[in-house]
Amino acid sequence: MADDDDLLSSISNPDDLRKLTIDQLPVLCKQIREFLIKNLSKNPGHFGSSMGAVDLIVALHYVFNTPRDRMVWDVGHQAYAHKILTGRMKSFDTLRKYGGISGFPNPMESEYDTFVCGHAGNSISAALGMAIADMNTPGESDRKTVAVIGDASIGNGLAFEGLNNASNNPNNLLIILNDNNMSIDDNVGALHRYLSNLTTSSGYNKMRMKIYNKFRKRGWIGEKGKGLVLRFNNSLKALISKQQNIFEGLNIRYFGPFDGNDVTKLIKVLSEIKDMKGPRILHLCTKKGKGFTSAEEKPQEWHAPGKFNPSTGEKVVKTGNLAWQEVFGMCLTRMASTNNDIVGITAAMPSGTSLSIMQQTYPGRVYDVGISEGHAVTFAGGIAAAGKKPFVGIYSSFLQRAYDNLIHDVAIQNLPVVFCIDRAGIVGEDGVTHHGLFDISFLRNIPNLTVATPIDAVALQQLMKTAEAHPHPFAIRYPRGKSDATAIEDEVSTLTIGKGRVVFKSGLESKNPEIAILSVGPIGKDCIIAAQELESDGIAVDVYDMIWIKPIDRSLIEEIGNKYDLIITVEDGVISGGFGSLVCETLADMGIQNPIVKRLGIPDKWINHGSVDILKKECGIDIEGIKKSILSSLNH
Amino acid sequence: MADDDDLLSSISNPDDLRKLTIDQLPVLCKQIREFLIKNLSKNPGHFGSSMGAVDLIVALHYVFNTPRDRMVWDVGHQAYAHKILTGRMKSFDTLRKYGGISGFPNPMESEYDTFVCGHAGNSISAALGMAIADMNTPGESDRKTVAVIGDASIGNGLAFEGLNNASNNPNNLLIILNDNNMSIDDNVGALHRYLSNLTTSSGYNKMRMKIYNKFRKRGWIGEKGKGLVLRFNNSLKALISKQQNIFEGLNIRYFGPFDGNDVTKLIKVLSEIKDMKGPRILHLCTKKGKGFTSAEEKPQEWHAPGKFNPSTGEKVVKTGNLAWQEVFGMCLTRMASTNNDIVGITAAMPSGTSLSIMQQTYPGRVYDVGISEGHAVTFAGGIAAAGKKPFVGIYSSFLQRAYDNLIHDVAIQNLPVVFCIDRAGIVGEDGVTHHGLFDISFLRNIPNLTVATPIDAVALQQLMKTAEAHPHPFAIRYPRGKSDATAIEDEVSTLTIGKGRVVFKSGLESKNPEIAILSVGPIGKDCIIAAQELESDGIAVDVYDMIWIKPIDRSLIEEIGNKYDLIITVEDGVISGGFGSLVCETLADMGIQNPIVKRLGIPDKWINHGSVDILKKECGIDIEGIKKSILSSLNH
Repeated sequence: MADDDDLLSSISNPDDLRKLTIDQLPVLCKQIREFLIKNLSKNPGHFGSSMGAVDLIVALHYVFNTPRDRMVWDVGHQAYAHKILTGRMKSFDTLRKYGGISGFPNPMESEYDTFVCGHAGNSISAALGMAIADMNTPGESDRKTVAVIGDASIGNGLAFEGLNNASNNPNNLLIILNDNNMSIDDNVGALHRYLSNLTTSSGYNKMRMKIYNKFRKRGWIGEKGKGLVLRFNNSLKALISKQQNIFEGLNIRYFGPFDGNDVTKLIKVLSEIKDMKGPRILHLCTKKGKGFTSAEEKPQEWHAPGKFNPSTGEKVVKTGNLAWQEVFGMCLTRMASTNNDIVGITAAMPSGTSLSIMQQTYPGRVYDVGISEGHAVTFAGGIAAAGKKPFVGIYSSFLQRAYDNLIHDVAIQNLPVVFCIDRAGIVGEDGVTHHGLFDISFLRNIPNLTVATPIDAVALQQLMKTAEAHPHPFAIRYPRGKSDATAIEDEVSTLTIGKGRVVFKSGLESKNPEIAILSVGPIGKDCIIAAQELESDGIAVDVYDMIWIKPIDRSLIEEIGNKYDLIITVEDGVISGGFGSLVCETLADMGIQNPIVKRLGIPDKWINHGSVDILKKECGIDIEGIKKSILSSLNH
Repeated sequence: MADDDDLLSSISNPDDLRKLTIDQLPVLCKQIREFLIKNLSKNPGHFGSSMGAVDLIVALHYVFNTPRDRMVWDVGHQAYAHKILTGRMKSFDTLRKYGGISGFPNPMESEYDTFVCGHAGNSISAALGMAIADMNTPGESDRKTVAVIGDASIGNGLAFEGLNNASNNPNNLLIILNDNNMSIDDNVGALHRYLSNLTTSSGYNKMRMKIYNKFRKRGWIGEKGKGLVLRFNNSLKALISKQQNIFEGLNIRYFGPFDGNDVTKLIKVLSEIKDMKGPRILHLCTKKGKGFTSAEEKPQEWHAPGKFNPSTGEKVVKTGNLAWQEVFGMCLTRMASTNNDIVGITAAMPSGTSLSIMQQTYPGRVYDVGISEGHAVTFAGGIAAAGKKPFVGIYSSFLQRAYDNLIHDVAIQNLPVVFCIDRAGIVGEDGVTHHGLFDISFLRNIPNLTVATPIDAVALQQLMKTAEAHPHPFAIRYPRGKSDATAIEDEVSTLTIGKGRVVFKSGLESKNPEIAILSVGPIGKDCIIAAQELESDGIAVDVYDMIWIKPIDRSLIEEIGNKYDLIITVEDGVISGGFGSLVCETLADMGIQNPIVKRLGIPDKWINHGSVDILKKECGIDIEGIKKSILSSLNH
């Protein structure tokens, strides 16, 4: 065995880890943390939660027989140490880069990654499926499945549905509640407060575990009797701690809380709990950012801090234009100052959506409902039904979780909820689970809904003002990243709903065939550049910013359809059923047959991680791709 | 005031009700039940839950100042008595009929109906939005909001998210848990068992309420002190009943359980609880089918019994062909007999999907997860990841609730989950919230997913067999109602994925212009009849059953596109982004410009209730509509 200095580099898989002695593990954890600091300071990633989960990950791989025993992560950006211990240390500097390893566990990447885990709350359901399947597969019933879920994720409705079903069928699922007292932002919700209270009564729980183990060792209780002892204990606990145990109410045995940053203790607890039968939950308290002082002190800022100085903890400050989300946050705050009916709603993303800006000025008018996307939308419906004007700030890929809520609780009733859909389109490094590619196609089929997308920051503000005045549901999609503005406008006008516009008219005289690009969203800027560059090559192309996906500007489409021979549609979203598809439909409905329509957008395959620029290039929707598509049509 | 004999007919709104004395209310409840029996025996509807909720509804309107005070129903088919008391008694014989009153509360129908309530679990979130909005609206803070939720609905993840957020912001929401110990089928899940246990300890809870009221009347406790007393009581209760209270763990005060079929008692309890501050939950036990012996005895069968003899309770037996769902249920059971890996999953709909057929033969291989659509799909993903072959039987409109689960937990990982999507297309009497109209458009954009739809019962069985052999996600959509078969096949062949077929070739010689109908699903049968009828008028039309929405048969589309001048696409789903849209896209991608494409399907508006035939006619997708569309194109 290697000496302390290079424990980490001696480990190429969990078998190597399991050869270490327990005393060596604290050193290993320290080395993993150093490795994380060194790497993530240069190549940014999810720092805080990954630092907090190091000890737990080491302990899990030490105690369980991975990969046969399965770990199912919930929002797996906490699992960097897991990647490092399962053969991906050498490629760790490619984390989140194009062609490199993913920022989340992914079954396509490693046999140790058992399930996709970009969206919160799915681990219990998925792991339960595995655990029950194993019970019914010859030779597999001793296989172990562990779901690791955070204290914010466990408040998600899907996680609750998993808990509610955990005891329906025989299984030995172990749920580990990794409680770092945080969502990405502050955690909210009654369950969260409940967990905090449990934690303050931890002395009692430790005693209980001790008693239980003593009884078990002496053979005083078998597995069958367990329920009784625990119930007695819980009743006692209810008196002592003034708390009742929700999990045991749901028929899942509860153990904890224990210190999740004490690897030696963790090995002991996990070994004791490992072979117990039936579903059970182990509550561990960990510290986000553990091992890096600045991150421990300001866990929110260090969730995904970007580049930083590994010695001083000084972060590399980003400058430049406002992000799209900031334009939204600032504009909404300004609108709220003159309209008392406006409220903001976010599902655990006040910082990510910049609703935090409004929260600072109007704390009573911003509701952070935790990782509860469905509730966020239905709640908005209720607020709107009572006469207020809710703006829901939500990421496109998370709106997928509230699709029925949008249909059933908002659109059928024609309620004036405004959906400000952030991270629409390719998001870059967060990868396959986080791209917001489906929204155009899943929204444009909903009656009563207006769907628009701004080409620039001014248009976003204009659309928000238009939405404010519109008495029906309204969706505005905009991407991740920087906008074209450094400040918001003092005042903007509204836009006419359903009115597109030409944004580039070629100055060239003769055009044969006549070519138009139709686009929605900021990608229109790239279309203009492509048209400008083609013009200097002598090819005339006009560009239309259609703005409105629903209702689309039919009279403009008619005009375009009758004028041009080649129409290129460009969108930052899936081609299937998207904006270009809508253009085809609209032309067909009008009986306009002349123009060839060529649709550019995201093809019918999963797009992985990498920079937005590289991924757009891969999909052929960068400037070069747009030009190439036109040129190839001409040469055809 | 009218005498006992016609109390009910004297009530045209809740103000009239509130003029009655409390002693008159039991008689009124009896009269409402008689009215329900008389009407629903002739004009079928949701009988069991509506009979059970009569006393509660009378008490709520009696105690609360509706419509200013708001009631928010959860799965509002229980609320027939509410309709009767709020001015809709005279139109009650139009229930669920085209142009008549809806089977669910609907804000478009009455000011007493505050929110749409077709899908379970949304009431707490919506009512919370209203209650919080009122707290922040001048003059409205005394307005009361009551959510009425069943014991099955409260196990839904959305309901949990609502509960988890109920105490985040000041509000006086009252949640009434209408516990009839049932989902549509047997209720499942840990929360359900928990509620049953609470109920068995009801003696203690009654005592607690009594003590609390005594204390309050004597001024010993104010609202502030409440928490303390209740906590003490809960600890006591935990010892006595061996249960902990989950709701109080979530910071919502809990009262009950009380008999929800005792209207006098209900008035008393509601009056006591009405003006309390803060979120609270009142647990009532009711009996499904209350007041009609057969229904009390067999609540599952009497959920929506169809027509019946009001004296004998004898049901009018439906005969004839197998329903589509039965073809699914029987075929899956047969397949499961030779493939041990097959498991069935349903979200509270074993009867509705006919997974109950498999459940009878293989009880250990069918998982009913309760009203947890998201969990059902993610759980299926987990089961598939562990090597089994799950078939998820789910209604189209409920699959909307698992959209992200399908994308994130199944399709990204390419897991072999089969979605058998029942109630796809227009469903008829259940109306706007239950039509399954969006699935083609929201599924066809998902990479890795195969989407197909059978024209007849044999094709459904062939598709299921094809799905069984396919190692990736697979969706099959089929409608509500009767299929064309009276029995399933002993054996069927698989189909070639992505291969459409001609199902009617006109025998007429000269055809100018050449016309083809392209359809997916059973509506293809109507297309054939339309073509046959047109042929006898001398108009030649060919019909293609495309079967596969994803992947569409591109070579057949190419052939058709080059051959025909007019293509009519017909689908039982939304036109926007649907199958016809896909045909337009595909032709555009191939550069085929000649044919005019006319798309028939569900237009961009909400479709209400009525018989399937009438609604199809309204949308122009009945046989006449298809013919008319072709004829008008010819005359154009």
